[in-house]
Amino acid sequence: MIKVINIKKPGDGSAFEIIERKEKDPVGNELVVDVHFSGINFADIVMRQGLYPDAPPYPFSPGYEISGVVTKLGPEVTKFKVGDRVLAGCHFGGYASEVVLPEWQVKNLPDDWSFEEGAGLTVSFLTAYLTLFDEGRVRSGDKVLIDCATGALGTLCTKMLIPNGVEVHGLTSSAAKKELLEKRGVKAFTHDEFYNDSNLKGYDFILNSQGGTSIKKHYERLGLTGRIVCIGASSAVKQGKRSLLKALKLVLSMPKFNPINLMNDNRGIYGLNALRFFENPEFLSSRMDKFTEFDAKPAIDKAFPYGQVSDAHSYIEQKKSRGKVLLSWK
Amino acid sequence: MIKVINIKKPGDGSAFEIIERKEKDPVGNELVVDVHFSGINFADIVMRQGLYPDAPPYPFSPGYEISGVVTKLGPEVTKFKVGDRVLAGCHFGGYASEVVLPEWQVKNLPDDWSFEEGAGLTVSFLTAYLTLFDEGRVRSGDKVLIDCATGALGTLCTKMLIPNGVEVHGLTSSAAKKELLEKRGVKAFTHDEFYNDSNLKGYDFILNSQGGTSIKKHYERLGLTGRIVCIGASSAVKQGKRSLLKALKLVLSMPKFNPINLMNDNRGIYGLNALRFFENPEFLSSRMDKFTEFDAKPAIDKAFPYGQVSDAHSYIEQKKSRGKVLLSWK
Repeated sequence: MIKVINIKKPGDGSAFEIIERKEKDPVGNELVVDVHFSGINFADIVMRQGLYPDAPPYPFSPGYEISGVVTKLGPEVTKFKVGDRVLAGCHFGGYASEVVLPEWQVKNLPDDWSFEEGAGLTVSFLTAYLTLFDEGRVRSGDKVLIDCATGALGTLCTKMLIPNGVEVHGLTSSAAKKELLEKRGVKAFTHDEFYNDSNLKGYDFILNSQGGTSIKKHYERLGLTGRIVCIGASSAVKQGKRSLLKALKLVLSMPKFNPINLMNDNRGIYGLNALRFFENPEFLSSRMDKFTEFDAKPAIDKAFPYGQVSDAHSYIEQKKSRGKVLLSWK
Repeated sequence: MIKVINIKKPGDGSAFEIIERKEKDPVGNELVVDVHFSGINFADIVMRQGLYPDAPPYPFSPGYEISGVVTKLGPEVTKFKVGDRVLAGCHFGGYASEVVLPEWQVKNLPDDWSFEEGAGLTVSFLTAYLTLFDEGRVRSGDKVLIDCATGALGTLCTKMLIPNGVEVHGLTSSAAKKELLEKRGVKAFTHDEFYNDSNLKGYDFILNSQGGTSIKKHYERLGLTGRIVCIGASSAVKQGKRSLLKALKLVLSMPKFNPINLMNDNRGIYGLNALRFFENPEFLSSRMDKFTEFDAKPAIDKAFPYGQVSDAHSYIEQKKSRGKVLLSWK
């Protein structure tokens, strides 16, 4: 039997249930992965809180990324064999001891990567790559601002940009983390320092993960022909509280952009929701392939046994995490 | 004495006056150009109609681009000598027999370019370059839509993209012009054909010059991570009629873009107003320099003697032009 973690209905840590279901046989180009680790993402928490518009109907199993070993092959699988160490992106359902996935969602885990590292790659890497190189098309010589510089995504962006001749400025909520950023080659500012210094401007690219009123503030700091890419609304979710009112206020506080203002400002604005790319397997698979071109190994903070999933969520919600948080199935 | 064409106040062809004023001596890094030809641009017509928000107070002399010969040098000029054949971008004032400009706005006219060709380059080239390569960052393999494919700007975009491995689709208002576009390697559609065929989609980049409701229609045709760059509102100006009501309607019909929708669509929107780049001489000069990297020679339709400036404007307004229209000062 397979163990699956479901979210029964929106709520706090008690919203989870662990169920068992029968193994499925792979068909066509599907393969079965015995899951070692599942990555936890911020979007999972927003879904548990009932605030994620794209979530499936309750109950459902969240989870976008896993690592493990291939145990069964559908008749049309060509690139894998039983026993391969792999990582994979999932369109939900990654919080499970076994997953059945089409071959294109699965990639070989490099020999020098641990299963922990593999489970923490996919979401951050795809978001970073699509944001930086497909939408923003950041290039050497650009000046870039990352508003979530100390998180998994921000850290990865830094590692993908600095070796390619990009100047990276990073924001953090904590003065104590500035030193860490500076060591990585990032020019670091607390949010307060940044908003109080109007000379920090002229950015070619800004990654905005906070949403709400921060979008307009960041937009004002773009240089000529600069672009801002909005990837979420992390400021809606605080300290484990499911705040529908706060989320609503955030949606309403999102500025609207008129093309006439964009013309006068010579600027651009993008949005990204990596989940939607599952509609286009070829595109998504080609982007997943590129992780080997970068030093993309994620920093792992901690793996919680799968039975402690609610502890794992609250660890992230309480901002205790200093790297990727995982669920362990072994 | 220098002859200068002014727009006295908003109106039809009678809005022009030709005045004389004394020569000015160049100071600092300025130089004097004896103007051979002045380029006429669509924005000049919108200004004459009184519909251009960035126009100086009336009366003023319009004109963004000229060609001619250097006749005097300020003491700090380093790159030019008297007698040099040049082309230049002007921040207004190009409708004149002589102009005084800072050196950075002036570029050498290549030996195999005529003065006519030189006077028709700057506005189209800067708009094309900034739109395609600074904002849109179009790259090899992209699929691109140009909504003004037969005009000076659209023609230049085509010549800058197709040799670089970009697939170009072009819109034209006239079925008769499709053949011309196809000969240049553009896949051509009339506006009607395009809007009626919902399979024409998946664009990585769309150049929108029409504004208004066309922006939303074009936006819907973008592919994943695609971008639209809005550069104007040409559909507001028709057949020489100064239609304030029409312009107002167009402004009001501009869609507004919410970052949440942009996220769900994985798309971006930019605006461009090349005029604003005069605030940043170094940036603009570096872009003007790049014209020699492309086959950027403009197709010249016709040069009107400067005294026939109102005929020249109405020739463009009546959509008779098949290339660049100039004023001749010789």
